[in-house]
Amino acid sequence: GDCFRASEHQHVRYNPLRDDWVLVSAHRVKRPWQGQLEKPPPEDVPRWDPKNPLCPGATRANGEVNPKYEGTFVFPNDFPALQPDAPEPDDNDHPLFRAAPARGVCKVMCFHPWSDLTLPLMSLPEIRAVVDAWAELAKELGASYPWVQIFENKGAMMGCSNPHPHCQVWASSFLPNEASLEDRSQRQHLSQHGVPMLLEYAEQEARRKERLVVENADWLVVVPYWATWPYETLLLPRRHVCRLQDLSDSEKDSLASIMQRLLIKYDNLFEVSFPYSMGWHGAPTGSYLEEDCKHWQLHAHYYPPLLRSATVRKFMVGYEMLAQAQRDLTPEQAAERLRSLPEVHYKKRPE
Amino acid sequence: GDCFRASEHQHVRYNPLRDDWVLVSAHRVKRPWQGQLEKPPPEDVPRWDPKNPLCPGATRANGEVNPKYEGTFVFPNDFPALQPDAPEPDDNDHPLFRAAPARGVCKVMCFHPWSDLTLPLMSLPEIRAVVDAWAELAKELGASYPWVQIFENKGAMMGCSNPHPHCQVWASSFLPNEASLEDRSQRQHLSQHGVPMLLEYAEQEARRKERLVVENADWLVVVPYWATWPYETLLLPRRHVCRLQDLSDSEKDSLASIMQRLLIKYDNLFEVSFPYSMGWHGAPTGSYLEEDCKHWQLHAHYYPPLLRSATVRKFMVGYEMLAQAQRDLTPEQAAERLRSLPEVHYKKRPE
Ligand SMILES: O=P(O)(O)O[C@H]1O[C@H](CO)[C@@H](O)[C@H](O)[C@H]1O
Ligand SMILES: O=P(O)(O)O[C@H]1O[C@H](CO)[C@@H](O)[C@H](O)[C@H]1O
Repeated sequence: GDCFRASEHQHVRYNPLRDDWVLVSAHRVKRPWQGQLEKPPPEDVPRWDPKNPLCPGATRANGEVNPKYEGTFVFPNDFPALQPDAPEPDDNDHPLFRAAPARGVCKVMCFHPWSDLTLPLMSLPEIRAVVDAWAELAKELGASYPWVQIFENKGAMMGCSNPHPHCQVWASSFLPNEASLEDRSQRQHLSQHGVPMLLEYAEQEARRKERLVVENADWLVVVPYWATWPYETLLLPRRHVCRLQDLSDSEKDSLASIMQRLLIKYDNLFEVSFPYSMGWHGAPTGSYLEEDCKHWQLHAHYYPPLLRSATVRKFMVGYEMLAQAQRDLTPEQAAERLRSLPEVHYKKRPE
Repeated sequence: GDCFRASEHQHVRYNPLRDDWVLVSAHRVKRPWQGQLEKPPPEDVPRWDPKNPLCPGATRANGEVNPKYEGTFVFPNDFPALQPDAPEPDDNDHPLFRAAPARGVCKVMCFHPWSDLTLPLMSLPEIRAVVDAWAELAKELGASYPWVQIFENKGAMMGCSNPHPHCQVWASSFLPNEASLEDRSQRQHLSQHGVPMLLEYAEQEARRKERLVVENADWLVVVPYWATWPYETLLLPRRHVCRLQDLSDSEKDSLASIMQRLLIKYDNLFEVSFPYSMGWHGAPTGSYLEEDCKHWQLHAHYYPPLLRSATVRKFMVGYEMLAQAQRDLTPEQAAERLRSLPEVHYKKRPE
């Protein structure tokens, strides 16, 4: 088309990782919003609360007392969705009624002893400690489980029921849906193009620049060309890295640094502790450790729900659930906005 | 396994329509909930509000004045995500940066002139009028567009910004993701098994009974074996029907009746106007009208977010977004609970 502008004209974009499409209708953000407003996060979280089961020295649901930990702290989830032992479902009697066994473990990892901190407010060495703990858990649980899903739900809007900074790790005996999808699409890309999909993608985005948010020598963060959530980002290494546990010491430092920069920008966007769900995807583990996983490239997805302000989110509902994801601003607009934000946290700005 | 019980033991179930899996961990609902509480819907919606753009006689965003309609009322969405004309995106210069044209129309349909009604509180003839309007829109827009997505977002929790009873219709020049997925899986089932997937499924569920919620001569509603949302249901015809516009007069009557019974049960579950997103899927239209669509079976999905009470919802967040959907009660438990609820609306019960 001779006068196509992505920010004015609806179109669909292809997501090569998930093999699906997103509808981009950027003109739509002009409509007024009279719907639900979200409650901003509490500002008065106590640093230490003996009744909060994630705090050092507190008693958990199972009666155990947490140590007086001073860095990160990993413990078993007291209400695990996956357990190491479970009887197997009976044989399927019909192709439309298929069940299969599921085994695994669920852990919780506190990022820091203080409840009133979040990653963007932590120091670089503190964030580096989180990265180290992630890599250790990925390696330890990956020794036996094919998939180790590290994820953080941040903020009540993302179903997080505890303000204490923490993430979860669910390891499973099966490849979950998203892992299978990404495995298939990355495998196909490597075989068709001779280069891992996300390695090529990072190179392209580093050159094109319009969707870049932050970058350093080892990493870059982009609003992907096919982003679904308004301010969704993808964190990518520049070098070919299959798994968290394959990162070098200096790559872990630069990861801590780029995460800090991204998360400060996120908080600065609406001057609120920015809610999101994030998680790591890397090559499968367990018995896959013996297999060729060169098509995989390590990456983290950040899925934040906010659209217009600290209290107005994007709802992925009717059309999105029944038909296809739809977004109200272009990925390029989102990247520009994030890029232009200061790298000093709004709570730490000099008066 | 010799002692497997679905309500006690985690397992995964296969969704043959979407070709993916759900993790069922029913023991998990035992954990306490300290997270976000939802605001119950307002009880004091005025029957008529001249400032509400969906009301008869009100002025809309574009300056037009609504007629004093007395039944259903269809008008163009004033902030459409899809428009009939848009310049085409430029040719793709790289396989990882693929855009494609998207055209369509978006309409809004009011169910009734009163803002303080919802479908479960409407009379059978009033619901039947909604069914008729759906069939007409499906036919009219389906004459040129390959996909006509009829959907209702009910409740502020589902991003609905207006309490007036209404749904939306987005017709598009492309098959959206969910349509493509269901087209592929249903096509494959017919070719492998010689019978449309959802026709066979309905027969099976009518016989097995444990996931039935309501049924009549033409229709049944089940919590599907692979349900993702806690109280998700699937509304299915017993006979092979491709599209809404293929329903007979008496099937439209029995559809109005079964919808009313389902929605009254939904409202009775937590004695609250039950939020959900719902929508119709039928065989594609437009140029597909000339093609063989026998693998398709008409159906409606209901996706309600509530889990524990009128104020505690299921959050599909971290693990669900990054790995795989997870549910906290079995589909059989959900069906049992819905089945046992009265068919008289809690607001209409004699004192
Ligand atoms: O069109 P509405 O009701 O204003 O908007 C609602 O439904 C749309 C279609 O599912 C979504 O894209 C919006 O996020 C949601 O708020
Ligand atoms: O484990 P949590 O934090 O209590 O629970 C949260 O995260 C889980 C994993 O994404 C979800 O299944 C829950 O719906 C959500 O509330």
